[in-house]
Amino acid sequence: MRRSKSRVRVRYAETDQMGVVYYANYLVWMEVARVDHCRMLGFEYRSMEEDSGAFLAVTEAHCRYRASAKFNDEVDIEAWVSETRSRSIRFAYEMRRASDDEVLATGETLHAVTNREGRMIRLPEQYREFFPLQAKGS
Amino acid sequence: MRRSKSRVRVRYAETDQMGVVYYANYLVWMEVARVDHCRMLGFEYRSMEEDSGAFLAVTEAHCRYRASAKFNDEVDIEAWVSETRSRSIRFAYEMRRASDDEVLATGETLHAVTNREGRMIRLPEQYREFFPLQAKGS
Amino acid sequence: MRRSKSRVRVRYAETDQMGVVYYANYLVWMEVARVDHCRMLGFEYRSMEEDSGAFLAVTEAHCRYRASAKFNDEVDIEAWVSETRSRSIRFAYEMRRASDDEVLATGETLHAVTNREGRMIRLPEQYREFFPLQAKGS
Amino acid sequence: MRRSKSRVRVRYAETDQMGVVYYANYLVWMEVARVDHCRMLGFEYRSMEEDSGAFLAVTEAHCRYRASAKFNDEVDIEAWVSETRSRSIRFAYEMRRASDDEVLATGETLHAVTNREGRMIRLPEQYREFFPLQAKGS
Repeated sequence: MRRSKSRVRVRYAETDQMGVVYYANYLVWMEVARVDHCRMLGFEYRSMEEDSGAFLAVTEAHCRYRASAKFNDEVDIEAWVSETRSRSIRFAYEMRRASDDEVLATGETLHAVTNREGRMIRLPEQYREFFPLQAKGS
Repeated sequence: MRRSKSRVRVRYAETDQMGVVYYANYLVWMEVARVDHCRMLGFEYRSMEEDSGAFLAVTEAHCRYRASAKFNDEVDIEAWVSETRSRSIRFAYEMRRASDDEVLATGETLHAVTNREGRMIRLPEQYREFFPLQAKGS
Repeated sequence: MRRSKSRVRVRYAETDQMGVVYYANYLVWMEVARVDHCRMLGFEYRSMEEDSGAFLAVTEAHCRYRASAKFNDEVDIEAWVSETRSRSIRFAYEMRRASDDEVLATGETLHAVTNREGRMIRLPEQYREFFPLQAKGS
Repeated sequence: MRRSKSRVRVRYAETDQMGVVYYANYLVWMEVARVDHCRMLGFEYRSMEEDSGAFLAVTEAHCRYRASAKFNDEVDIEAWVSETRSRSIRFAYEMRRASDDEVLATGETLHAVTNREGRMIRLPEQYREFFPLQAKGS
């Protein structure tokens, strides 16, 4: 699958007293990468919510931490769609320190397509071209 | 004015690599205290938004940092209304370390009463009893 | 295993524009529960870091989202140790809405015991009583 | 004074249920701009902490909110030094929506120069060229 590339610079706000990035913030970076991924595919995630009332609600998140990111580090995030079903989409992520390409973390998020009220719906027609049905790991 | 008292315990997530609470998090604690203050006055802030469509949008925030809060510290927050006009409410805050009562920070937030679209409105009738008009510093 | 119980009230800061709690914040709540769990076991996590220089660095985090938490909701978090090895500890979590006991999310975090520099070490002697060796799922 | 320019894109994580950016996050953006400002001046803030053990601890923060930032908006932040004394530095900020240049917020932060233990010190010699003494508003 096509991979998008995003870059973030670690904010002081994202560190904790251990001197490294607090673990929940990697999920925020996954969101940044996911939104960039949609842009690369050809649409703004914001428009999907506003125009068609479809949301990608997270139903599962997983992150494996391999090395620490520190304040001011630049972090590259690759994101790709690893599975698409009629009502759910799975994204995978790989985060690397830009300076030496060391893998910091890998992760996955699973999303249900929902309406504004949180009920599961089918992905609206106009977005199906961006997410062709695809079994996991294919 | 009546003061509400709230207590938070510092989360690891709220610290930064300096080993103390990151400065923006004091504004989150002010929000916690503000919501508790409304509860003390006799209503849930959430209901105010949901039932009457009135929001207290922050138009100004100020914080003076005097000592550092650390992970696991318990912090007491006093909050009070320091000014009420027909379309705005000002809250003041004092945050102390619970263990020794040392003042950590003091602050203020000014809020416009708005509708869901962000336009300024008068405070809905049923909430006026909780916020009697009052000049600053009176 | 013994379960600890923690309660948090959803902060406005923790919501997002979908009107529910942003997904990364569940990991923050897991941290709150983990620290409370240590206290229930008989020690302060902060002291473990400060006095023996041992850290529980997260190496893996997983969360399954089942229902949405909303602003002002009270959320009960149960936490327990689901696996203990000489150099790693796994925690499990269950989060429920206090008002109706509906499960909001379940999760797990895996931690390596490390020193201040991030190198894996054995759990210091004085903490072994709190974490008896235990295979996963036993 | 020379102004630095930074750009952030609003993250979903930064929004709240009002559908706009939560007010504390503007202080995080100020930090991003401050760090970029140091880079423009000729040094990395991270190196200042690591190499000379000097920290710019926030002693005061102020933000005036004028319009709302929304998810996915690009925000331009101008930052400049508005006052420099031997032991303190004041930064000022202006945040604008990139699409239409509307001012979203203005702010200020005051910083004490401290050592690792939080005691006030003079700005280390090698950084004085970057922060020539300057009265407020001059």
